[in-house]
Amino acid sequence: MSDRIGFIGLGNMGAPMAEQLLNAGREVHVFDLSEASVEKVVGLGATAAASVAEVADGSETIITMLPAGTHVRSVYLGAGSLIDAAAPGTLLIDCSTIDVETSRAVGAAAVEAGHEMIDAPVTGGVMAARVGKLNFMVGGAEKSVERARPLLEIMGQKVLHAGPQGDGIGVKICNNMSLGICMIAAAEAMMMAKRLGLDPKRTHEIMSNASGMSWPLVNYCPLPGIVDGVPANDGYRPGFSAAMMRKDLRLAQEAALSAEANTPLGAHALAIFSHFCDSGHLETDYSGISKLIGGDAWDYPRDSGE
Amino acid sequence: MSDRIGFIGLGNMGAPMAEQLLNAGREVHVFDLSEASVEKVVGLGATAAASVAEVADGSETIITMLPAGTHVRSVYLGAGSLIDAAAPGTLLIDCSTIDVETSRAVGAAAVEAGHEMIDAPVTGGVMAARVGKLNFMVGGAEKSVERARPLLEIMGQKVLHAGPQGDGIGVKICNNMSLGICMIAAAEAMMMAKRLGLDPKRTHEIMSNASGMSWPLVNYCPLPGIVDGVPANDGYRPGFSAAMMRKDLRLAQEAALSAEANTPLGAHALAIFSHFCDSGHLETDYSGISKLIGGDAWDYPRDSGE
Amino acid sequence: MSDRIGFIGLGNMGAPMAEQLLNAGREVHVFDLSEASVEKVVGLGATAAASVAEVADGSETIITMLPAGTHVRSVYLGAGSLIDAAAPGTLLIDCSTIDVETSRAVGAAAVEAGHEMIDAPVTGGVMAARVGKLNFMVGGAEKSVERARPLLEIMGQKVLHAGPQGDGIGVKICNNMSLGICMIAAAEAMMMAKRLGLDPKRTHEIMSNASGMSWPLVNYCPLPGIVDGVPANDGYRPGFSAAMMRKDLRLAQEAALSAEANTPLGAHALAIFSHFCDSGHLETDYSGISKLIGGDAWDYPRDSGE
Amino acid sequence: MSDRIGFIGLGNMGAPMAEQLLNAGREVHVFDLSEASVEKVVGLGATAAASVAEVADGSETIITMLPAGTHVRSVYLGAGSLIDAAAPGTLLIDCSTIDVETSRAVGAAAVEAGHEMIDAPVTGGVMAARVGKLNFMVGGAEKSVERARPLLEIMGQKVLHAGPQGDGIGVKICNNMSLGICMIAAAEAMMMAKRLGLDPKRTHEIMSNASGMSWPLVNYCPLPGIVDGVPANDGYRPGFSAAMMRKDLRLAQEAALSAEANTPLGAHALAIFSHFCDSGHLETDYSGISKLIGGDAWDYPRDSGE
Repeated sequence: MSDRIGFIGLGNMGAPMAEQLLNAGREVHVFDLSEASVEKVVGLGATAAASVAEVADGSETIITMLPAGTHVRSVYLGAGSLIDAAAPGTLLIDCSTIDVETSRAVGAAAVEAGHEMIDAPVTGGVMAARVGKLNFMVGGAEKSVERARPLLEIMGQKVLHAGPQGDGIGVKICNNMSLGICMIAAAEAMMMAKRLGLDPKRTHEIMSNASGMSWPLVNYCPLPGIVDGVPANDGYRPGFSAAMMRKDLRLAQEAALSAEANTPLGAHALAIFSHFCDSGHLETDYSGISKLIGGDAWDYPRDSGE
Repeated sequence: MSDRIGFIGLGNMGAPMAEQLLNAGREVHVFDLSEASVEKVVGLGATAAASVAEVADGSETIITMLPAGTHVRSVYLGAGSLIDAAAPGTLLIDCSTIDVETSRAVGAAAVEAGHEMIDAPVTGGVMAARVGKLNFMVGGAEKSVERARPLLEIMGQKVLHAGPQGDGIGVKICNNMSLGICMIAAAEAMMMAKRLGLDPKRTHEIMSNASGMSWPLVNYCPLPGIVDGVPANDGYRPGFSAAMMRKDLRLAQEAALSAEANTPLGAHALAIFSHFCDSGHLETDYSGISKLIGGDAWDYPRDSGE
Repeated sequence: MSDRIGFIGLGNMGAPMAEQLLNAGREVHVFDLSEASVEKVVGLGATAAASVAEVADGSETIITMLPAGTHVRSVYLGAGSLIDAAAPGTLLIDCSTIDVETSRAVGAAAVEAGHEMIDAPVTGGVMAARVGKLNFMVGGAEKSVERARPLLEIMGQKVLHAGPQGDGIGVKICNNMSLGICMIAAAEAMMMAKRLGLDPKRTHEIMSNASGMSWPLVNYCPLPGIVDGVPANDGYRPGFSAAMMRKDLRLAQEAALSAEANTPLGAHALAIFSHFCDSGHLETDYSGISKLIGGDAWDYPRDSGE
Repeated sequence: MSDRIGFIGLGNMGAPMAEQLLNAGREVHVFDLSEASVEKVVGLGATAAASVAEVADGSETIITMLPAGTHVRSVYLGAGSLIDAAAPGTLLIDCSTIDVETSRAVGAAAVEAGHEMIDAPVTGGVMAARVGKLNFMVGGAEKSVERARPLLEIMGQKVLHAGPQGDGIGVKICNNMSLGICMIAAAEAMMMAKRLGLDPKRTHEIMSNASGMSWPLVNYCPLPGIVDGVPANDGYRPGFSAAMMRKDLRLAQEAALSAEANTPLGAHALAIFSHFCDSGHLETDYSGISKLIGGDAWDYPRDSGE
């Protein structure tokens, strides 16, 4: 077995992640159903595999970045799958954001087959992927996480070890549920400030230094012209799309139902982002939820007069 | 006119604020409907006035700390009130957290009568009041805010100037609406983490350094045993009571209705804190909302095993 | 005093109500700020008054139909108002749908001035007004309600006596809050049925005869092609507009806040109808909320295949 | 093959259903994991089977009434299961209320094995089961439904055919989601009426005849003393327990997530019933949700004075 890396799933996130590995001089053997996606990464130095099984053959580590649990099941389980075709002892790293149940089921099957497996979903979005600044929330045995760390640190900056396999995804789902709720809270507070005739900049500055503060308020201000460099200033081009936020909020509700957890605001946030997506904003940055919250007040002119 | 300070409203918050002024060597002339409250502050060096009008007589500055808009109206407006009885040019500082509409109406009446007025509601709760660490969110003319600043800095640490009179309260209401929502978000995320079998401490640590972060998650963790010094570790003794949070969320809904602002999660948060208060938790710290969210999972034992 | 009827407020609802009285041969003296509205009713036989006071002069009964509490206050209270200008013993009938607090305050002032007053808000909308089929939810003394009954029965069909003055509006607000919630419930159930691949007609028929039944499901089915004669079949032309539903849900939230009532779904329904209005549907029938609920599934073709 | 009926699942619902069949003179062969449950029904004339397979052996029709999808899967699928052990052509009737996905999967497997299968979940609760007044919402081929009808009409009164197999459960889930929402709407409206000082009886009567009407308002009034014979008058003894309502609202959310349907109020209703169950009300009638909505106003005395 060489130190070749297999990589399956070359979408918006997978492609730039593979590219980081290539930039670091690693040998990467890739597979994706889209030939165009494969060609692009091959153009950067990767080699193309004809199937999942061919990726498995001869790769010491295999990374997957897939859209949903069903894809993960079909790539990992059954005849000719990764678990079936990989040599015992292969390190399997699933970076997909999927449901906890599937992740745990696949992880158990991998271990039973003699592999090591970690789940390593990412945060930071496409922009972070392009510059190798993703954060990984990781679940797996200490040993496996350490084995994966050098690769993860090529693609990202922080490797946050949450617990046993499946817990990386678990923490990410909890984290992103909080993110979605707090973004709406930020939009509600900022838009109400406008409706009340308050100065948005001062309101934002005060809240950012007070108990109303949250990560999205400070780092992803949902109104334009208040914080530099956020999607709101760029016509809400993502960033992190509303469709992706809806996906994560759905995963949170699936997790909540199966674990019988109460998540009243999590469920409500899903409903709000669903309305937003349904009204033509799938590819709007999720901070654009301020448009739905603001209604016709969203673009009130107000001279901050400072 | 001496530099005497009038102080009306000696409740849980007003009494320790007046005490800070006395500790700083200021002359304080007080009034409250409760004789016991007056006596206690007189015992610390204040002098007692027999009426609102008597407080006004001879005070250069008058501070009020009252429970609700109706009290503010009756103390400030009409014959024998503060605005009526105070000498022109008096500085009126209302520290009450009330509705924006009342604050603006009273402020306009004060200015018309030749006074200066600012609204200066506080954050930080009783504990901050006792040690002079309140934060003031202030609305008023620059000149009046500067005139008030030395007194505010005796009672607190930060003086955050939001805009014209009424805007201090406006920003506080927006801030606390966000606070209430984000606290529930923190409780939902942490309790779902427990239900999913994740390690609460690691989950909290990862989220505190990721996009799911919010002020209440970091500073007021709603589960015990994770962050030092929070009410959750002390049986949810407040701190900031659920009843106070409900009051602020009601003010937010009143503001939203009158300004026609959309606040879906703000309204939902009020409903959740109302259920919590109704089930016997008026005087529980607001972070205790994790009990309502957690249901029978709240006190799951889980050994973090680190 | 003749048996002349004064009528103030000739909008979408007021005009057809006045017309019913004229059709019944009654003498009607009208006032509205819009000259065009006045002219139209004068063309049907009414006489025009130059002011509120002039309406009061010589009318045994005065009916008002105004958009909001502020209009009611300004028409009824103060110098030159109805209460001021009307002869003692006049019967005042306010058909406006406004907040309970204003209604009760105005009613008390009217009685103190020696008048009789009832609140008599209507249900049924413009179409019912045009054909004299409104229902009145009435608050006032038994004696006053009986005095008003003959006129109300000209304009409508049912006179439902709720209790003392103000209670007609109180009951209407409770009723319409339930209506708004149940309409959304009907839309959610019917749209989920479509998503699940169920036959919408059979689903509707079964639910209409089972425990999921509600007035809007049966009488105002939010999907087209299932029940005859509903706005859904006519491109959601109102009927009862989304803007009117939003207004009533706002009144419900104002009432809930002032009475400290918990209305979690009432608040949520307001948020949902607000999003709908904000997205350009002010004048869509309120049953069109199925479009917001249905998202891209709303117009799924599905052959019922019966 | 005789005309013997197999019956699996003798819980609160299954036992009285089997009893109705015995009362009608039918031969019933039963199985349940609980020996006590089996004994009780054997005492009424049933014969006991030692296993699922033994029930299948020699029964022309088999009825199952099980708590959840997992039980249905294990009873119907795999070696020794109903589908495996029953003679081809057996009519399988699943009366369980479970998720649509499981129901459709099991139904497809049954048909593939040469059986006929319908899903026939019930409404009406334990009380209706005891007197043979259940309603069945049925999914399956016309032929199979007609074959089942004589048995269903022994156990219940209405047989509502929704569509192909699985659609009975689909419609029931939609119906009960609407029921749960409308019950909360009824409780909110009635409790707000009390808070506003309205007469609850008159409010109820007016709403029951107006657009705020819904099945639970009329048939299951959530306040005591207004409608005869409802659980509210009997200390909220079920009837239909809050735990059962929570279960159905969870099934609705599972269906909504898998079908990508928007159900904002459905999700909210689940959260509210979950809080209610968590606060010790699992076995309270679901109309007792008025207690949670009413808070400390729930038992306001108010003499209706009629």
